[in-house]
Amino acid sequence: MSLTAKPGGAQAPAIGVLAVVGVGLIGGSYAAALRQAGHVGRVLGVGRNPQSLERARELGLIDAVATPAEAAAQADLIMLATPVGGLGAVLSQMREHLRADTVLTDGGSTKAEVIDAARAALGDRIGQFVPGHPIAGAERTGPEAADARLYQQRDVILTPLPENGAAALERVRASWQACGARVLDMDAVVHDRVLASISHMPHFLSSVYMTQVARADDAATRLALAGSGFRDFTRIAAGSPEMWRDIFLSNRDAMLAELADVRAVLDAAEAALRARDGDAMHDLLAEAADARRGWRKESH
Amino acid sequence: MSLTAKPGGAQAPAIGVLAVVGVGLIGGSYAAALRQAGHVGRVLGVGRNPQSLERARELGLIDAVATPAEAAAQADLIMLATPVGGLGAVLSQMREHLRADTVLTDGGSTKAEVIDAARAALGDRIGQFVPGHPIAGAERTGPEAADARLYQQRDVILTPLPENGAAALERVRASWQACGARVLDMDAVVHDRVLASISHMPHFLSSVYMTQVARADDAATRLALAGSGFRDFTRIAAGSPEMWRDIFLSNRDAMLAELADVRAVLDAAEAALRARDGDAMHDLLAEAADARRGWRKESH
Repeated sequence: MSLTAKPGGAQAPAIGVLAVVGVGLIGGSYAAALRQAGHVGRVLGVGRNPQSLERARELGLIDAVATPAEAAAQADLIMLATPVGGLGAVLSQMREHLRADTVLTDGGSTKAEVIDAARAALGDRIGQFVPGHPIAGAERTGPEAADARLYQQRDVILTPLPENGAAALERVRASWQACGARVLDMDAVVHDRVLASISHMPHFLSSVYMTQVARADDAATRLALAGSGFRDFTRIAAGSPEMWRDIFLSNRDAMLAELADVRAVLDAAEAALRARDGDAMHDLLAEAADARRGWRKESH
Repeated sequence: MSLTAKPGGAQAPAIGVLAVVGVGLIGGSYAAALRQAGHVGRVLGVGRNPQSLERARELGLIDAVATPAEAAAQADLIMLATPVGGLGAVLSQMREHLRADTVLTDGGSTKAEVIDAARAALGDRIGQFVPGHPIAGAERTGPEAADARLYQQRDVILTPLPENGAAALERVRASWQACGARVLDMDAVVHDRVLASISHMPHFLSSVYMTQVARADDAATRLALAGSGFRDFTRIAAGSPEMWRDIFLSNRDAMLAELADVRAVLDAAEAALRARDGDAMHDLLAEAADARRGWRKESH
């Protein structure tokens, strides 16, 4: 999927005023991509760190700094790229200032809890909020990490609410398409289960394993001899403890359900090992190898 | 550490006749590296697959094909690069033909079981066998995968036996140094525990996880959305089921002990998640992140 060429100067951009709350990797890249695509006019930045916002302005990611209330009153589209835990507070500050035709969306890694928080904060204006999740991680953070190309060829999942009108949904969808992303719709519960499985669980298991190695009496010997398999298996364990704590807690129920399923396979594998059951061990490993060899992604 | 330049033609190589049992990635690379270093004269290849041995001869990895008995009678140094499970049978065929000054070594991924098998097969000639393990994996197999540079800058662990004489140990050590490797000595039980931790356990956990994902009703949806974290975490799960089954069973006791320790951390992490204990979750993730960020290997 490629960026759609925009007609020149005279025509108004699709989004007159965009507000981004949290101008870091996710929010800053969204602003940069939409600006590059000619999809937005003015960009407002909202956040708690004045230095970070000033840096975002210097970098041209935003045109001006705004409060949540100002952003709510002025923006046609608001991207909430804050940590999941801080979303409700920002929405509460915005609520009474929101215009009826303002559309809000977010970039949070989990959706059920975000939707609960948004319902509590927005009340009868919940229809203006279209939950979303761009699947485009990176270790880097902050405005310096923003990249107009971050979302090109990436998947963005929207988990629309029954209250969302077609126009609100379309405004969010078109913005992501302007960023070069593929947009998928999905039920929020399904989203959270799928992400628990293929994103959060690897991080959880990698961190558990890394901690176990680090606590061993002979950890230094172990780490000195660890090679490329170890390197790849533990790469994600180096990620931000704060961010992943929030993701795990926010997606607690789905994670616990997945963990029960992982434990069932772990128990079977351990039982095969204990019983020296080579056939059972082989079959389990072959199932994993077949699945992994059959997995292909063109864009990673 | 670099290859030591060898003096020219007139001087005899350190190893007059080398025999390699199993001329694949490990054995073939050893032969190729030693030949390139001028460390060996004639190289004999032993194996069960005539086509593979003929290919090894065409590739110049070996000079001639030999039976185990012929290799035992002629070689100054014998590298056993067979699967761990097949080692005892080959040694039994060799025993009565071995010269008193022949030295044997191996490249098996686990050492305690190999040593037991070698003791059973070699009896009072066990002092001629110096157990070893080059830590240089690769997905490729067979003589085509052999590479004279495979062991450069890599670690090779020797787990000497009380019965090994200094000359036998030195012959094996010098051969690995001629391959460009770093040679470490380690107790066999410690080796097996360390390798269980930093090599076998990641493969075990990655395979368990991959199997769990593959068995999910919505596996196709999951795999379609999996990204770079999933990719790295599961890369090793694509490895050979036969090879890894043999490694796990061969290192069963160390694996079970490590698994108990991994489960203790897993239980604590799950309990923190269940209790919504953000501090405990953060501390565990921070411990993992600190350990992983502090890990550096210059050569991987």
